[in-house]
Amino acid sequence: MALHELEKKLGDMERAVHLRREYFKAQSALDFSNLPVQGYDYAKIYGSNCEVVVGYVPLPVGLAGPIQVNGENVFLPMATTEGCLIASTNRGCKVLSMGSGVQSIVLADGITRAPCVRFPRARDAAALKAYLDDAANWTDVAAAFNSTTRYGRLTSIKTIQSGRNCYVRIVCNAGNAMGMNMVSKGTLAVLGHLQERFPDMELVAISGNVCTDKKSAAINWIDGRGKSVVADAVVKADVVARILHTTVDKLVDLNLQKNLVGSAMAGALGGFNAHAANILTAIFLATGQDPAQNVESSSCMTMLEKTKDGDLYISVTMPSIEVGTVGGGTHLGPQQACLGLMGCAPHQVNDDATTEQGARRLACAIAAGVMAGELSLLAAISTNELVKSHMELNRKK
Amino acid sequence: MALHELEKKLGDMERAVHLRREYFKAQSALDFSNLPVQGYDYAKIYGSNCEVVVGYVPLPVGLAGPIQVNGENVFLPMATTEGCLIASTNRGCKVLSMGSGVQSIVLADGITRAPCVRFPRARDAAALKAYLDDAANWTDVAAAFNSTTRYGRLTSIKTIQSGRNCYVRIVCNAGNAMGMNMVSKGTLAVLGHLQERFPDMELVAISGNVCTDKKSAAINWIDGRGKSVVADAVVKADVVARILHTTVDKLVDLNLQKNLVGSAMAGALGGFNAHAANILTAIFLATGQDPAQNVESSSCMTMLEKTKDGDLYISVTMPSIEVGTVGGGTHLGPQQACLGLMGCAPHQVNDDATTEQGARRLACAIAAGVMAGELSLLAAISTNELVKSHMELNRKK
Amino acid sequence: MALHELEKKLGDMERAVHLRREYFKAQSALDFSNLPVQGYDYAKIYGSNCEVVVGYVPLPVGLAGPIQVNGENVFLPMATTEGCLIASTNRGCKVLSMGSGVQSIVLADGITRAPCVRFPRARDAAALKAYLDDAANWTDVAAAFNSTTRYGRLTSIKTIQSGRNCYVRIVCNAGNAMGMNMVSKGTLAVLGHLQERFPDMELVAISGNVCTDKKSAAINWIDGRGKSVVADAVVKADVVARILHTTVDKLVDLNLQKNLVGSAMAGALGGFNAHAANILTAIFLATGQDPAQNVESSSCMTMLEKTKDGDLYISVTMPSIEVGTVGGGTHLGPQQACLGLMGCAPHQVNDDATTEQGARRLACAIAAGVMAGELSLLAAISTNELVKSHMELNRKK
Amino acid sequence: MALHELEKKLGDMERAVHLRREYFKAQSALDFSNLPVQGYDYAKIYGSNCEVVVGYVPLPVGLAGPIQVNGENVFLPMATTEGCLIASTNRGCKVLSMGSGVQSIVLADGITRAPCVRFPRARDAAALKAYLDDAANWTDVAAAFNSTTRYGRLTSIKTIQSGRNCYVRIVCNAGNAMGMNMVSKGTLAVLGHLQERFPDMELVAISGNVCTDKKSAAINWIDGRGKSVVADAVVKADVVARILHTTVDKLVDLNLQKNLVGSAMAGALGGFNAHAANILTAIFLATGQDPAQNVESSSCMTMLEKTKDGDLYISVTMPSIEVGTVGGGTHLGPQQACLGLMGCAPHQVNDDATTEQGARRLACAIAAGVMAGELSLLAAISTNELVKSHMELNRKK
Repeated sequence: MALHELEKKLGDMERAVHLRREYFKAQSALDFSNLPVQGYDYAKIYGSNCEVVVGYVPLPVGLAGPIQVNGENVFLPMATTEGCLIASTNRGCKVLSMGSGVQSIVLADGITRAPCVRFPRARDAAALKAYLDDAANWTDVAAAFNSTTRYGRLTSIKTIQSGRNCYVRIVCNAGNAMGMNMVSKGTLAVLGHLQERFPDMELVAISGNVCTDKKSAAINWIDGRGKSVVADAVVKADVVARILHTTVDKLVDLNLQKNLVGSAMAGALGGFNAHAANILTAIFLATGQDPAQNVESSSCMTMLEKTKDGDLYISVTMPSIEVGTVGGGTHLGPQQACLGLMGCAPHQVNDDATTEQGARRLACAIAAGVMAGELSLLAAISTNELVKSHMELNRKK
Repeated sequence: MALHELEKKLGDMERAVHLRREYFKAQSALDFSNLPVQGYDYAKIYGSNCEVVVGYVPLPVGLAGPIQVNGENVFLPMATTEGCLIASTNRGCKVLSMGSGVQSIVLADGITRAPCVRFPRARDAAALKAYLDDAANWTDVAAAFNSTTRYGRLTSIKTIQSGRNCYVRIVCNAGNAMGMNMVSKGTLAVLGHLQERFPDMELVAISGNVCTDKKSAAINWIDGRGKSVVADAVVKADVVARILHTTVDKLVDLNLQKNLVGSAMAGALGGFNAHAANILTAIFLATGQDPAQNVESSSCMTMLEKTKDGDLYISVTMPSIEVGTVGGGTHLGPQQACLGLMGCAPHQVNDDATTEQGARRLACAIAAGVMAGELSLLAAISTNELVKSHMELNRKK
Repeated sequence: MALHELEKKLGDMERAVHLRREYFKAQSALDFSNLPVQGYDYAKIYGSNCEVVVGYVPLPVGLAGPIQVNGENVFLPMATTEGCLIASTNRGCKVLSMGSGVQSIVLADGITRAPCVRFPRARDAAALKAYLDDAANWTDVAAAFNSTTRYGRLTSIKTIQSGRNCYVRIVCNAGNAMGMNMVSKGTLAVLGHLQERFPDMELVAISGNVCTDKKSAAINWIDGRGKSVVADAVVKADVVARILHTTVDKLVDLNLQKNLVGSAMAGALGGFNAHAANILTAIFLATGQDPAQNVESSSCMTMLEKTKDGDLYISVTMPSIEVGTVGGGTHLGPQQACLGLMGCAPHQVNDDATTEQGARRLACAIAAGVMAGELSLLAAISTNELVKSHMELNRKK
Repeated sequence: MALHELEKKLGDMERAVHLRREYFKAQSALDFSNLPVQGYDYAKIYGSNCEVVVGYVPLPVGLAGPIQVNGENVFLPMATTEGCLIASTNRGCKVLSMGSGVQSIVLADGITRAPCVRFPRARDAAALKAYLDDAANWTDVAAAFNSTTRYGRLTSIKTIQSGRNCYVRIVCNAGNAMGMNMVSKGTLAVLGHLQERFPDMELVAISGNVCTDKKSAAINWIDGRGKSVVADAVVKADVVARILHTTVDKLVDLNLQKNLVGSAMAGALGGFNAHAANILTAIFLATGQDPAQNVESSSCMTMLEKTKDGDLYISVTMPSIEVGTVGGGTHLGPQQACLGLMGCAPHQVNDDATTEQGARRLACAIAAGVMAGELSLLAAISTNELVKSHMELNRKK
């Protein structure tokens, strides 16, 4: 019996996992004794989320918040093993909710797929680019794409040419799905449509890396991918002093020297923040998002300014938050439970097919959580007693 | 009783989690019924890995491999909910192990922390830079750093100046630890040492973002961070044909147009690969690494060439794999079990304090796994039957 | 008499320059004896191109070519003091003209200006972005822009938001002008139009660096600026062997390891070429373009492939060639003479106001010249006798 | 008689140029009548700076300054056709010289060449990297390099490996030369030395683009190339008000929103400035530098801060100023005259072979000039009356 057929042949999913472990133990002396196996709903992942399953790894989930986002209190379930992360985020949530809370806005929403196609010569590729750039052809191309999906809608196409190649970046509003499958399916239809008109067109790759998925690339930072979110808030100067034990001036200066100048000197691409990836990744893991997409999803510009009244203005700009509330790992019980804690689960949101309230709400909450994490860490750095005392000590010696 | 004191006050860790859930349910109508809570060793994470704990999220773990790495068979536990990822990686492992296997080499090894310090004027900052650049001062500075750690060793310091700021990038060989705590502690000692000699020096931030941690930045791509690994392998042409159903020429061409040209056109920074982040993140999660560090750890240049014999040469270059086998999430039972499946757990490795066999072995295995994932996905793209048939259909219409 | 008023007061332009030199000589002991002063048409530059004039620096001009571009023979005047540059480019021109010549295509054409505007809060900035993203408002915005120019036409607007700032990247087709003045004037009109609708909008800067002018930035590489040009050609294998003394395989390999992998490892942004800047800068200087714009204009992806027939396919992709044939330094006699050598001077081109044949022709010729330079240098590197003999010598020792 | 042999055959250089023009006129109907030809010292460029010479293009030179740099008054000859550039820079020079002037410091000094070498497998390449990283081998490698040059000194080597390739970035202190020839020559010797020890090493290219010359790349921004210069100054608040008609607060804010945030959003690489390229390019052209090197030489971080006394602190950080006072175009009479105006000509500087006072002084002056240009332009933007009145007008309508 083939190892990957155990589930199918046995019918009993958990027994299949047990048997597989026995096999590896016998064959290769692998020790599974500390890898949990019982009590997991293997049927849910069979054939859709994981193969050659040998157990599961539990990630502890802490609950930060509530944080006031767009007038509502939102909790942030975070799956992490980094000590202090949740406590620190929590402190940020508290501070940000003491005034009028966080305003979090989705500026744009589109998942992308960019096939690479090739022609005999550059002028042929240019003809394809001209066709796709011509608004007169939009209706036809959009019809091809939209015929493949009930929820998605083609929103734009950007064609980047290099020599005789075209990288056709297709952008799709994917409703509550993260949308990679949806946009890939629609992309095939667009390619079919183009192949008819450009018989010389050769498909090199359904993904030509201009998408760009799970890799750091300027095109996502500039054009956005998934949800492009900006969030901001104002924190009173006395709150900064009382709760964060620092001052507006210190925070503004620290953010400038670290998140702007420091990152710029390091050759950062979208990394103008303190630790956006920490908060985003923890929420991604809790809610069944694809954690490999945090590479670009965690791109963030954190900005701190002093208001005319002497208070703290803080904003985070995150152009590429790739999230969904359906599909991927979101259908699994525990992950869906976490979506539920955030009020983003499909059954909670008064959604029709096109408004994607759930996924947008999730993206807005993540940006707010990132802001909380940024504010709290910056405050900690600006007041680091440990550092001070240590350096003081040395000075005295 | 304060929410975060439940564990301390009750003594019973799991009961504390239950009570906390009750509280949130009562106060905020949160529904935890589908979030697992039982059977987790909460004592292990209390006070060190997670706060405000309300349960855990189980991630299914599949086992790819074995893959032959440096002459040994290595298994790759992967925690993921992305369907087909493990099956595809597995195929790559198989192919790469049919010949002489993967050679995987650690080129450099150093975790970094870069405080930002400031002076009245640029010339004062330049004096600090000159001091740190002067080999004559190395012994003193290294002594300060090394006094703080039994395992770590200062390996180099790079000072980037901007105006009157210096960003002092301190590099530490951290043994089997990922090393952020170790390097941070040593950094304080170095700062203390410098403060004595440069009384005008003002500490702006213990981390000035030139480190660069969990953010995309060229400095990690160029100078490396954590383990810098290169791996390569040769795959026979007939294996490419028989198992991967494609040809060496097609794979080489695809890699060029997608991973090199496509990424270059998209303004990629270290993203010259197909999906390195997928494999790396899944192993990171299984083995208790910090998944937010995949932002830079997954940077990868994938290269495919045709050998003189017509076979396939493949290499992956990953300058910034940040891993450890002690500390962080690695001490948790399930995660340590996964390290054990890879032969990287502390008790398995014939390690003295300075050789860090475990963490280096882990980094080498990750690079090999990434190679398997790259090869398999590229092969799939180059032969995508679905795409072809779909486009064929349209052509016929 | 003020130094800068000499021209105005004296009337005699050259005498003013002489007097100014006398003044500096007397006051500051400056020695102008070797700086040419006579025979220059100072009236042309007075009040428009240069201030505090003390003479001129002559740059030698060599003539490369002809090179066959889009079926016509084009000469390339190059102002340079880099030895061998023209001879090498010339060799490339010869080789590229032996077959069917270079095809050079303008893919897009738009100069940009991106003011930075600011609002009280991010949601207000988002309202501006939404207004500008809404196709329904295009007619009004375009009317405001186009009212300021007879030749230019607004082609698109892209609004990048960061926190409460919007960077409004306004793109203008500028006819035969490079267009910075034109787009800046139109930008003022757009800002005026927006100010009426968004009274809370505060102008921070007429240029907010998202333009991006004379600085390396991914947005120009991805979206283009000025003329976006792709050129390609096929060179017969026997020509490669006979004239370039190398082989197609060697050139293709060299380009891959150097211009793609090498540049990628160095963290290049648009620098996927050997020395595009050399050729472009020399033609810019000869023809009165702004040489500071070569920072982004020289961005180039050079691609070499082996055709099915074993010949060499070469392409260059240059998204940001910022050129004009009117305005700036192009109206000066010598520079206009050089434009005339290329067949791009205003009087030579059968131009109506909107076709901008001259500037486009110039951009196409520059790309072809760059290709010639790339090919010749790559060939030289691949056959470097000096290197070989030197290393041979050492091997023997 | 071959066209390129005219000089050699005729002996009379200017007559050769005349004859060449006649030839092109006859053959290709080219019109040289407005391209200057007389009075140029063609002998100087023959065989070393330019080929197929047909005349020269005169660039007008204006004189900005003096500006106080490191306690001395320095003039800045600028060759440009951009109106207002010199006048604006001049204003900056004036303002910066009213207090204690500009402090300008060379932090590092090294020109680079990075050959690409290749091995059968990655482990072989790793052996080369290990050899070059090992301090024990430094003396031998340095001896090989230094044997080729009287003035240059090997300062460091950085080996970046990708797969089975190594890119060996060789850094040379080149005295008063820009140094590309010097470092290339030394590189050959190093390669010869390595070839003996690594017989499997194959030279792919004497330049593998990790140098990186005349292309935008992060490695130059981070590691520097040529002279790495930081300059700063303090301008009194009342000077800002009186001469620049703006305020410290406005300038600081403008610099932040434009040069830091705007550039970061545009995906800038080293482009954190307003128009450094303008000033640098104009001085490069006047003094015989290579204008194609401004691509990386003009990388600049401009920083403005408010001092505790309410004054303006300004700094510019330029890691890659590639300049020389011997070699290239610097030996030509007019260019050398401009070097002389700056006090940087070889005969003016009390130089022994190793101190490179001339080239360093030039780099320091350029950075100071850039600062003047930045300050003046930022002031102009912050007070743009034209913009204000235009928008005012619209508001009233």
